[in-house]
Amino acid sequence: MSGRPDSTSEARVIVFDGGRREARSDDLATEEPLEIRLRAASLDEAGTLNLQGPPRPRHRAVAVTMRTPGADLELAAGFLYGEGIVRNPEEIEAIGHCEDAGVAASKRFNIVNVDLRAAELPDLDALHRHFHVTSACGVCGKTSLDALRLSASTPIPSGPVVPAEIVIGLPEKLRSGQGLFASTGGLHAAALFDESGELLAVREDVGRHNAVDKLVGWAFRSGRLPLSRHLLMVSGRTSYEILQKAVMAGIPIVCAVSAPSTLAVSVAREFGVTLVGFLRGGRFNVYAGAERVAGP
Amino acid sequence: MSGRPDSTSEARVIVFDGGRREARSDDLATEEPLEIRLRAASLDEAGTLNLQGPPRPRHRAVAVTMRTPGADLELAAGFLYGEGIVRNPEEIEAIGHCEDAGVAASKRFNIVNVDLRAAELPDLDALHRHFHVTSACGVCGKTSLDALRLSASTPIPSGPVVPAEIVIGLPEKLRSGQGLFASTGGLHAAALFDESGELLAVREDVGRHNAVDKLVGWAFRSGRLPLSRHLLMVSGRTSYEILQKAVMAGIPIVCAVSAPSTLAVSVAREFGVTLVGFLRGGRFNVYAGAERVAGP
Repeated sequence: MSGRPDSTSEARVIVFDGGRREARSDDLATEEPLEIRLRAASLDEAGTLNLQGPPRPRHRAVAVTMRTPGADLELAAGFLYGEGIVRNPEEIEAIGHCEDAGVAASKRFNIVNVDLRAAELPDLDALHRHFHVTSACGVCGKTSLDALRLSASTPIPSGPVVPAEIVIGLPEKLRSGQGLFASTGGLHAAALFDESGELLAVREDVGRHNAVDKLVGWAFRSGRLPLSRHLLMVSGRTSYEILQKAVMAGIPIVCAVSAPSTLAVSVAREFGVTLVGFLRGGRFNVYAGAERVAGP
Repeated sequence: MSGRPDSTSEARVIVFDGGRREARSDDLATEEPLEIRLRAASLDEAGTLNLQGPPRPRHRAVAVTMRTPGADLELAAGFLYGEGIVRNPEEIEAIGHCEDAGVAASKRFNIVNVDLRAAELPDLDALHRHFHVTSACGVCGKTSLDALRLSASTPIPSGPVVPAEIVIGLPEKLRSGQGLFASTGGLHAAALFDESGELLAVREDVGRHNAVDKLVGWAFRSGRLPLSRHLLMVSGRTSYEILQKAVMAGIPIVCAVSAPSTLAVSVAREFGVTLVGFLRGGRFNVYAGAERVAGP
């Protein structure tokens, strides 16, 4: 037993069905907190790592998210990328589960430590502002999109153009890639496709934002960002948060099985993202950027 | 035009269906930020409000949530109750949308100002810790439930016992109460029932936690807490966060159309909540507290 938590877990349930009451077991999606901790590396005067330098400070916890274990390093990297804390893989000197002997073994897999190749930590107040505000704030109202961390983003360039048949084929490919966790009925899925509709990666999580962070983290760690010729598909709805993450990753086409919110549509239109909703049963709606969908 | 945002909004979409491509309009669920601001009232030495006292400080923003407009005051009150900042309605001296002339009219409906009947603001660091952690932290791992704001909660007392037929009837009642927004396909719903299965209130939101906060805020403002003879039903999945809010409100039975997470089940078992999942099509599973379901 390494203490590493599984992505699913069995539970005893009582089933009430058609006048019968019986006990059986059921697969559940695991939900556990993940704490992301940061510290800055020591750099010498030339800006290279100084391994003989003074002892480093302890890692500082910057976020806790309730997530499904698995792809934790991708989740941490994708979260930090989405928040603008890291821009390319070289900025991360080391990333791994906590190995601190002072932390109980059972908890180490719920902590990811990240060493940044930087002289000091970036402005973490901005990170906090994203969720909770500690001072006078202008994050409200319809003109506030820029304050919600998109100000640094640029509109997505034009292209690619994808035939409608490829879009219609995505849900089936997403489901086939999902296999493992389909049993729980409790996971959001996010998948990345190339412009020919080939499935590149699927990630799942109890939190849909986490599923997208895991995908973006996978692309980040393998040097694929920006994803300027790619399609993102999510199993549920699209909100502000999903579009924000897509814009940060440079994704031109975002598809969802279910409905978008008004703010998802606003962000898509403002940043030139193609936004597809209600993609199921051989049909779909395009809420923004229809020029990237060819045909029928 | 008061500037008050609607709960739904019309958008032009391009529909791709069976080889046709046509424009039509579609209802979307509105998503807008809501900022919750707090300030303490001035109290005189006897602890009563001192309206002749020195000018009060400005309201301080404590949270921003992406929500569907409507029931904003309930949402703010329910959020503050769930976070342990207020315990009963008398602690709130005043609550309303922002009327600050320095804030653009279009933004005022995205801000709720709350005046607390207290000499000073409570510890807001604990609020921040709930999402983002700023110092050494023990919020990780399986033994951390207490750190996640449930430490102050007590287990739910036994009772009521509800016949399985009443449970089976809840989804239809939830849907009938939802009518208005069913068109968008983009909203989570939460409903409160009494033990005979009578629908008391339904609230909807793009965020399921917000839908529950609105319900709890409704109960809080009308003096109904704790909800010790009530059933909560949510349209989607149950996670840690939903169970946390139910425990805080004293709700003994929580039902969901879809699956629970492992942590939802853990919290339910630890605090004595009956947790029902996959409640649809005349059947359901009980993951915890089956003694509150009678029959068949």
